[in-house]
Amino acid sequence: MADTAEIAQAVAAERERAAALFDRLRADGADAPGVTRDTFGAGEQRAHATVAEAARALGLAVHGDAAANLYATWAGRDRAAPAILIGSHLDSVPHGGNFDGAAGVVAGIVAVAALQRLGVVPSCDVTVMGIRAEESIWFQVSYIGSRGALGVLPDGAMGARRIDTGRTLAEHIADCGGDPKALAAGHRALDPARLRAFLELHIEQAPSLVEAGRAVGIGTGIPGNFRYPDARIEGRNDHVGLPRRFRRDAALAGAEFALAIETLWQQHEARGIPMAATIGRFHTDAAQHGLTIVPGAFHFSLDVRAYDEAVLAELDQAVSTIVAGIAQRRGVRFHLGAKARAAVGKVDPAIRAGFEASAAALGLPVLALGSPASHDAAAFAAAGVPMGMIFVRNANGSHNPEEAMTLDDFLAGTAVLTHWLAGAVGR
Amino acid sequence: MADTAEIAQAVAAERERAAALFDRLRADGADAPGVTRDTFGAGEQRAHATVAEAARALGLAVHGDAAANLYATWAGRDRAAPAILIGSHLDSVPHGGNFDGAAGVVAGIVAVAALQRLGVVPSCDVTVMGIRAEESIWFQVSYIGSRGALGVLPDGAMGARRIDTGRTLAEHIADCGGDPKALAAGHRALDPARLRAFLELHIEQAPSLVEAGRAVGIGTGIPGNFRYPDARIEGRNDHVGLPRRFRRDAALAGAEFALAIETLWQQHEARGIPMAATIGRFHTDAAQHGLTIVPGAFHFSLDVRAYDEAVLAELDQAVSTIVAGIAQRRGVRFHLGAKARAAVGKVDPAIRAGFEASAAALGLPVLALGSPASHDAAAFAAAGVPMGMIFVRNANGSHNPEEAMTLDDFLAGTAVLTHWLAGAVGR
Repeated sequence: MADTAEIAQAVAAERERAAALFDRLRADGADAPGVTRDTFGAGEQRAHATVAEAARALGLAVHGDAAANLYATWAGRDRAAPAILIGSHLDSVPHGGNFDGAAGVVAGIVAVAALQRLGVVPSCDVTVMGIRAEESIWFQVSYIGSRGALGVLPDGAMGARRIDTGRTLAEHIADCGGDPKALAAGHRALDPARLRAFLELHIEQAPSLVEAGRAVGIGTGIPGNFRYPDARIEGRNDHVGLPRRFRRDAALAGAEFALAIETLWQQHEARGIPMAATIGRFHTDAAQHGLTIVPGAFHFSLDVRAYDEAVLAELDQAVSTIVAGIAQRRGVRFHLGAKARAAVGKVDPAIRAGFEASAAALGLPVLALGSPASHDAAAFAAAGVPMGMIFVRNANGSHNPEEAMTLDDFLAGTAVLTHWLAGAVGR
Repeated sequence: MADTAEIAQAVAAERERAAALFDRLRADGADAPGVTRDTFGAGEQRAHATVAEAARALGLAVHGDAAANLYATWAGRDRAAPAILIGSHLDSVPHGGNFDGAAGVVAGIVAVAALQRLGVVPSCDVTVMGIRAEESIWFQVSYIGSRGALGVLPDGAMGARRIDTGRTLAEHIADCGGDPKALAAGHRALDPARLRAFLELHIEQAPSLVEAGRAVGIGTGIPGNFRYPDARIEGRNDHVGLPRRFRRDAALAGAEFALAIETLWQQHEARGIPMAATIGRFHTDAAQHGLTIVPGAFHFSLDVRAYDEAVLAELDQAVSTIVAGIAQRRGVRFHLGAKARAAVGKVDPAIRAGFEASAAALGLPVLALGSPASHDAAAFAAAGVPMGMIFVRNANGSHNPEEAMTLDDFLAGTAVLTHWLAGAVGR
């Protein structure tokens, strides 16, 4: 087996490949400001084609599945042995950054290239996976690609409509060469029992690593969530001159709701319980609202995440209590609509310890980091696949064009991944 | 001069004319739910045509002006004497009710018809005015028709764009047969010195008369206002997983702003100072927002009204203080944008006393009522024309399809107007 210094050197030697691949992906998705790799749309398609080409250049075997995920497999000495999957998603939010998702796929490509450079022939298959449709903004459904691969998509998912095109997930998947009928029937491309590990490198979506002055974080867990993607408040449109006591202002009810949720978060923070709550859509009705009308209708989305199922249940109860109080005080009705849930994703302790040992061997100080965001890795963990995550420092947050990950930091995270992989599959 | 009983009888005898005219106007503007008489658009045009036809049926002389207002004149014995104007606006908000505005025009028609029935020949001209463009929701400019007639439109008004069509006020006015160039040059159709009074009957936009069990209110004043039609908050779009301390959430800043404005109103109410504040548009950016994005942009409108210029100035200062505090605490920037103002409209004490005396003579108990809303009458008051207002009971507020004024209540208010008019112009 190659020693640590050789591995570090081999990863560093792949710098140009990584830079070129990121540049190509950025060009593929260019949609000023930022990049758009729309889920099951033209932007995501171009990214898949680019990664397939990069994989073929390494001699990897490329194939797809019913959810149109991309698998690029480096054949192992024992093809029957459980495989190691390395990957992340290739879609993005509209006008997002270039690294959220794609970095984990490029890391897989670079890790394979580096080990090939060292003459490694892996003991088992190592598959780089380009996952579809992780950004739930498009279809308001979580983990479409990874859950599709595992055959555990929720009932009715195929009928979800993309928020911009209005077309169904089934139509979009078919456009991209997938098989929506097989997915709806619960067909699975991946058998969790035949997977040794799922490894995901991802930019950190928060600036904790920036704050701590660390290039790399080792994941300790992925939050579960509950979501109300399409909630609304029903009040009454009234004239701007109406006295306060007569009003049923849906927007003020929304404002009170938003601040109550923020207070709930502050209280949990004070008690040391990690969580996050986001009201991403928060708006009066464009068809009805106006300068001189008391808003009678208000719409919002809610995403609440935490690392403990009991905390999530308690928070969901708190939302109900808040809603009931506001409805009574303000004479409005809340219609929370359909609720979506994602389970908490537990990191495999052995993989986490292995990543930490690799970082230590490489002389890289790391931060233990609860993922602020959801990741496909959670879907693998939920299916029983041992899972680990590596985070790379990133300034300016993600889901915006100002994402900033340096190539040095990316290569540092990829070196940890590659070092662990060498230990796991190297001769 | 006709006696009170005769006047009451003559107004009652015009019941069918009023009912038919309201029905026709409702059919003209039908746009389920409710009616739409869009400012300088097809809906308002049809209403003008209908009122012109009703006026011609009474032998009134119909003409227009540069702002395409409608004047239907009942010639007086002394054509050179200052005229009495009775009117209101004929436009509506989108999907509004049938009575907001139109009732004041129908009241003028009915008052003239009733006095004609009694054989009155007025001492001076009595002109029923169908005013254009009072609903500022369309162009975000107040009192376009009345200020246009008086030659006091603000600079640049002709360039305002209608919020739905995106076309300029100048284009829309030209479409309706007006003369935007003359308006922009400050041409006036009405000389305040040649007007004896402006009288406006309007449905009450609040349920104070319903609460008090009175059919009719006599106006004590019209609030002035200041408005920020296009304010926005600039934060930063971020990933849904971002810890609270790093966020610059524009929507939460908006929520805090809205509740602070509501608190300001509560405080004034507790001190007995009448005012109203409405945030009619209140929304994240549809092009950017989503379930998994911390909102980086937020938009709102603000309308604040009060009956005292000093109170308005104090409230505007309070808005600045609130904004500065939120901006500092939340790391966001407020861009309040252009500010519009309308002066407080003072009711002429003699006209108010005359309306009260007429109501007393008719045996009608009334309520003294500060107008909750703005009205064209305020523009006439600002120009120095003696002004009076009569409010008619209306359940369910206005600016919505559920406006509810009964024909009985309308005729009661119109009887007060007609009785006063008989005293003012009757032989």
